[in-house]
Amino acid sequence: MSTHRTDDPRTAPEDTEAETTNPPEAPGLTRRSMLARTGASLATGALLMKSGAAQAQSDVPGAKRPRQGSAADTGGPVARQTHLPPGRAGRDYRPVVVPNGSKLPWKDVNGVKVFHMVAQEVEHEFAPGLKATCWGYNGHVHGPTIEVVEGDRVRFYVTNRLPANTTVHWHGILLPSGMDGVGGLSQKSIAPGETYRYEFTVRQSGTGMYHSHHDEMTQMALGMVGMFIIHPRKPVGPRIDRDFAIMLHEWRIDPGTKRPDPNEMTDFNILTMNARAFPGTEPLVVRQGERVRIRFGNLSAMDHHPIHLHGYQFLITETDGGRIPESAQWPETTVLVPTGSTRTIEFVADEPGDWAMHCHMTHHVMNQMGHDLPNVVGMKPGNLDAKVRPLLPGYMTMGQTGMGDMGGMHHMPVPDNSIAMVGGKGPYDEITMGGMFTILKVRQRLEGEGDPGWYTPPPGTLAQLALADELRRDGIDVNAPPGADPGSPRRG
Amino acid sequence: MSTHRTDDPRTAPEDTEAETTNPPEAPGLTRRSMLARTGASLATGALLMKSGAAQAQSDVPGAKRPRQGSAADTGGPVARQTHLPPGRAGRDYRPVVVPNGSKLPWKDVNGVKVFHMVAQEVEHEFAPGLKATCWGYNGHVHGPTIEVVEGDRVRFYVTNRLPANTTVHWHGILLPSGMDGVGGLSQKSIAPGETYRYEFTVRQSGTGMYHSHHDEMTQMALGMVGMFIIHPRKPVGPRIDRDFAIMLHEWRIDPGTKRPDPNEMTDFNILTMNARAFPGTEPLVVRQGERVRIRFGNLSAMDHHPIHLHGYQFLITETDGGRIPESAQWPETTVLVPTGSTRTIEFVADEPGDWAMHCHMTHHVMNQMGHDLPNVVGMKPGNLDAKVRPLLPGYMTMGQTGMGDMGGMHHMPVPDNSIAMVGGKGPYDEITMGGMFTILKVRQRLEGEGDPGWYTPPPGTLAQLALADELRRDGIDVNAPPGADPGSPRRG
Amino acid sequence: MSTHRTDDPRTAPEDTEAETTNPPEAPGLTRRSMLARTGASLATGALLMKSGAAQAQSDVPGAKRPRQGSAADTGGPVARQTHLPPGRAGRDYRPVVVPNGSKLPWKDVNGVKVFHMVAQEVEHEFAPGLKATCWGYNGHVHGPTIEVVEGDRVRFYVTNRLPANTTVHWHGILLPSGMDGVGGLSQKSIAPGETYRYEFTVRQSGTGMYHSHHDEMTQMALGMVGMFIIHPRKPVGPRIDRDFAIMLHEWRIDPGTKRPDPNEMTDFNILTMNARAFPGTEPLVVRQGERVRIRFGNLSAMDHHPIHLHGYQFLITETDGGRIPESAQWPETTVLVPTGSTRTIEFVADEPGDWAMHCHMTHHVMNQMGHDLPNVVGMKPGNLDAKVRPLLPGYMTMGQTGMGDMGGMHHMPVPDNSIAMVGGKGPYDEITMGGMFTILKVRQRLEGEGDPGWYTPPPGTLAQLALADELRRDGIDVNAPPGADPGSPRRG
Repeated sequence: MSTHRTDDPRTAPEDTEAETTNPPEAPGLTRRSMLARTGASLATGALLMKSGAAQAQSDVPGAKRPRQGSAADTGGPVARQTHLPPGRAGRDYRPVVVPNGSKLPWKDVNGVKVFHMVAQEVEHEFAPGLKATCWGYNGHVHGPTIEVVEGDRVRFYVTNRLPANTTVHWHGILLPSGMDGVGGLSQKSIAPGETYRYEFTVRQSGTGMYHSHHDEMTQMALGMVGMFIIHPRKPVGPRIDRDFAIMLHEWRIDPGTKRPDPNEMTDFNILTMNARAFPGTEPLVVRQGERVRIRFGNLSAMDHHPIHLHGYQFLITETDGGRIPESAQWPETTVLVPTGSTRTIEFVADEPGDWAMHCHMTHHVMNQMGHDLPNVVGMKPGNLDAKVRPLLPGYMTMGQTGMGDMGGMHHMPVPDNSIAMVGGKGPYDEITMGGMFTILKVRQRLEGEGDPGWYTPPPGTLAQLALADELRRDGIDVNAPPGADPGSPRRG
Repeated sequence: MSTHRTDDPRTAPEDTEAETTNPPEAPGLTRRSMLARTGASLATGALLMKSGAAQAQSDVPGAKRPRQGSAADTGGPVARQTHLPPGRAGRDYRPVVVPNGSKLPWKDVNGVKVFHMVAQEVEHEFAPGLKATCWGYNGHVHGPTIEVVEGDRVRFYVTNRLPANTTVHWHGILLPSGMDGVGGLSQKSIAPGETYRYEFTVRQSGTGMYHSHHDEMTQMALGMVGMFIIHPRKPVGPRIDRDFAIMLHEWRIDPGTKRPDPNEMTDFNILTMNARAFPGTEPLVVRQGERVRIRFGNLSAMDHHPIHLHGYQFLITETDGGRIPESAQWPETTVLVPTGSTRTIEFVADEPGDWAMHCHMTHHVMNQMGHDLPNVVGMKPGNLDAKVRPLLPGYMTMGQTGMGDMGGMHHMPVPDNSIAMVGGKGPYDEITMGGMFTILKVRQRLEGEGDPGWYTPPPGTLAQLALADELRRDGIDVNAPPGADPGSPRRG
Repeated sequence: MSTHRTDDPRTAPEDTEAETTNPPEAPGLTRRSMLARTGASLATGALLMKSGAAQAQSDVPGAKRPRQGSAADTGGPVARQTHLPPGRAGRDYRPVVVPNGSKLPWKDVNGVKVFHMVAQEVEHEFAPGLKATCWGYNGHVHGPTIEVVEGDRVRFYVTNRLPANTTVHWHGILLPSGMDGVGGLSQKSIAPGETYRYEFTVRQSGTGMYHSHHDEMTQMALGMVGMFIIHPRKPVGPRIDRDFAIMLHEWRIDPGTKRPDPNEMTDFNILTMNARAFPGTEPLVVRQGERVRIRFGNLSAMDHHPIHLHGYQFLITETDGGRIPESAQWPETTVLVPTGSTRTIEFVADEPGDWAMHCHMTHHVMNQMGHDLPNVVGMKPGNLDAKVRPLLPGYMTMGQTGMGDMGGMHHMPVPDNSIAMVGGKGPYDEITMGGMFTILKVRQRLEGEGDPGWYTPPPGTLAQLALADELRRDGIDVNAPPGADPGSPRRG
């Protein structure tokens, strides 16, 4: 058995924590058995590493206290005093794909995964044409995705290069109270120039997050959030072929300015997936027939985003509280991701195509929209439009027939460092969407790992102009008054 | 076996689509088996129609790939190459009731259900006294409800009589990518005057929706949404006696104007069920003891509406992703319907009465409320009220004791084409509610299909003035200082 | 058998209500069997009291109509004609703890629990330094928690001492239509000075609420809400050691004013748990290893609050529609509580510490924040700050580095009757949180029932300054450019 040793007893602080058992009068649901129930299990026979001065432990607590009636109770989780050798990609897990994103690197120091996070100002591009000065980690907004394995011992050094104090909270992660990162409550906040150390053993698997928990309204609004993904030591649930991670966020960046406004409470105008707004979002590329997992995290200031995937029904399989038992999973086409939550969905990509995936709040698939504009839908233009435009930036003027058909309005002039309300180039026409919008590309064959381009529908599977003989055959008179039947037949 | 034939190979375009099977290394959860799991099944022995040049198919794919451990796997869904004869009301399903709504008619052309949708401007009445120029389909706002049967082959002609381009997206419906209706991405958008053809085989059952997916912020805000209901070919779940469909929506219509404002992002002032605001909503009428299903759709711009039903506990049985397995259903009295989602609830109407059903966001049960008004609750009126009223429309003035007790304020004068904040006539008094509010009327006996009038509670089941001898018997002194106990007894 | 008798036949009005059975063609899910399914059961052998002229009843309806396939069908609920002797704390239930709250007292009058509620104006303190004139019940905001037992007969006298009409709606409670409390629809509203009587038998267990249902936008915004907790007659689910009840709410109180503004629709600035804003919230105190239940109610005007608990995974076990079957429960660390709903969570408190519990909408953990302030993050101060402060109250000025690090800004001067944006004293530093925020304190040992003070982490489990030799050993150069790896490895 490999044993992690060090001369510094402080490197394995939980060792001194007494193992707590439930009093006899409160048997049943413990965190351990719940972990087991929700699929976060660790084979009891796995190679355990004892930290520091920890005593050998003859059994894994929790395995003896299964939840009554739980069929999924397949083993006990990681004991608090022990950890496992660092899990490795390929051997222990298939890495997640983070579109437009990055990963936090680590190194193995005596069996502990050591990370270095630097909180700092970052120049970030939301989409071609729009950059802003945000706050992030290691040169990225949002912070790089952390990817570890259940049973890992992890040590995070956090260096603060911001002009303000900060902390890191590990959202949804089970750990000692003093490592929880709530400024003032769990620890002293990290002053500019200081480097703090966080350290704990990962005792669960699933999808968590991290974010500043000091002046969090400001710091999260400026971008200081990231995902914290924990692979199980042994597979949980069906095998996954593609595993994506997407953080949802919302920002207020007034057109022409370069600083997100943390004071904004309702009127967000830049909505992002992994800090990119459409058309700046990288598509999700999948081979037909693959089983796909998408992990959504949401640390938006205020909104619960309903993410709709076209073309598929999927199951909701996970929250930041763990894996949802199969008996409790809901089928959906739109997953509501409450802020301060993660939601994982899974499906088999059996239908080829280019499938939109986006927030279904209609103002969240717009960029820097101007909802304070006058409503001119249906107005006879006359001189009005000409009179309004000098007062309001022309690119945001809502026309009398809406704005989708204004003919490539994303090519209209906009102020410096701004992007049009909507618009990405599509295979057929302008895609009149922006913001929290991306595309799932499912192909029978993939060459390489890049964007496979646009989908070509097989003959006859494309909506198009009806032919005259089709209309004749089907008896459709396009000029006739359209019909509808009464809606309330009382009894069938 | 009946076979559908046509000389136009374009009428059944998916025929050429190769049947896709999952690669051997990714067995398990496919859309087909998930459909089966969630109850959307089709008897394998049903009469299949092969479209166009499709080859005969000897089995139904999916039936051979049940999801491991799924108890509800009762059969395979409809194969992509085949469809069934048009399902018919009475024989194949009991039609849904759409209060205040309409249905989209169809005709059978060689075994295909053919529909004609016309996108157009519509004068719509939200409630007596309030009309606006909206955008809808076939003379209706929202569009007529589409009602089909699993296995139907459907063909939609969409004629655009709007001044702007549009498309139709079939929300939650499984179909080929080119029929998905996302402007620019799935197809070219439909220009004014054009008629497009959509066609696919319905391979699922449940509750979907349809809506414009081109300049959708504008077009959905103007009303271009509808429900898409698919009955199973064979019953799923317990038998339903009454089946209602209600689309939730939110609008901004400034008092005195006639155009909904699509730029509004937060301050919606007309909240509707099937595009009607209380007191304009038609009640849901049910016979005591009947099993009731209510299908809610929500395509509001921004809000997730929590719909509360008084008097009952119900189960949430369905999303737009399919039927929720019984093991996963939640009991509720308030169902949160996220925007871009459907939710179906079911219950047995065993308690007679007039039961309110409404959004529980308090500003959503108001009409054209003016939340920018000054707060004068508790103020001594003096001359203030008289001074404020000339500046603000009198009907919206918030009085110093609130506005519910101002005595039938919905009779107060309002600007042309506006409705009072609240108010419908109730059996006892003014009902101080508006907007997204309706009434479920449960009666032991029903005569005809219309509104049965108000409920008469049996003697003694009505809240009313306490009698003097009751107060004396129970030792209640209405003038004594009221009591309360400490709230935090530490241990019972 | 004890029998409740009275000479006044009006005291038990449901007695005359005919027991309704489902028609033979609609067997299956009834409210009764659903109650049973969701765990709200009553032993059929319990001591039944027959009200008024009710005839003896030989069996309990519902028990004979179990839901097909339901494994949890453990018995029938309370018959409508009968009730049980008043349930008592200690014998029949362990009382809930209502932090910062109160309970509604009752007395036993001939086997009926009699309550007296007085609707009235109340001077309420939200946190030290902020009081407002609200509307509540019995001298409290919110109203005292009602705590009863399944099978109880309850009689509420409601005296109206407000200047406006009111009613009481019993949210989520099964009762006769005329007792439902919707002004105008269910009853005549209660005029100032009047006392009304509500009476019914409690036929369920779980967590409900009560609130005004007359001019509810105004009256609920002013505080007229409360919780209605019903203990089962026999235990349901695992034994609970600590049972907390917390009502979530949102208010608009402009700094310096004393009246909540019911017209506010989006920009709430006081967010509360049991009507208290942090640092005014009382912590939840728990002994390590205890099984904890927290019941959240939400009657906020507009928001669905996502309540995040640090340090734990929990199960969602209950809505206001009843207990969620174990097979359907979701694990979570953040429970979304839609407005108009209750959510109950349960977990074993096996990890000692001081754990934050709060709404995860970042503007909801702020007090009276001013989001209309200019965004000055990143600005060079120069003279700007000095110029802005005279125009805006100094305490709300957002500094160029955010506001968390401005050094105890809650000690800065604020207008009379206002509280700082954030700030409570923590063990290490200022806690830069406010509003809907409290602390769960889990201790190995508790002395007495009060606040045990701050947690002391065991050696080595506290995040703190990294030591030079730690950095050297782990090869961390705090001044090096920070790294990140590409985020999209295509295949593991």
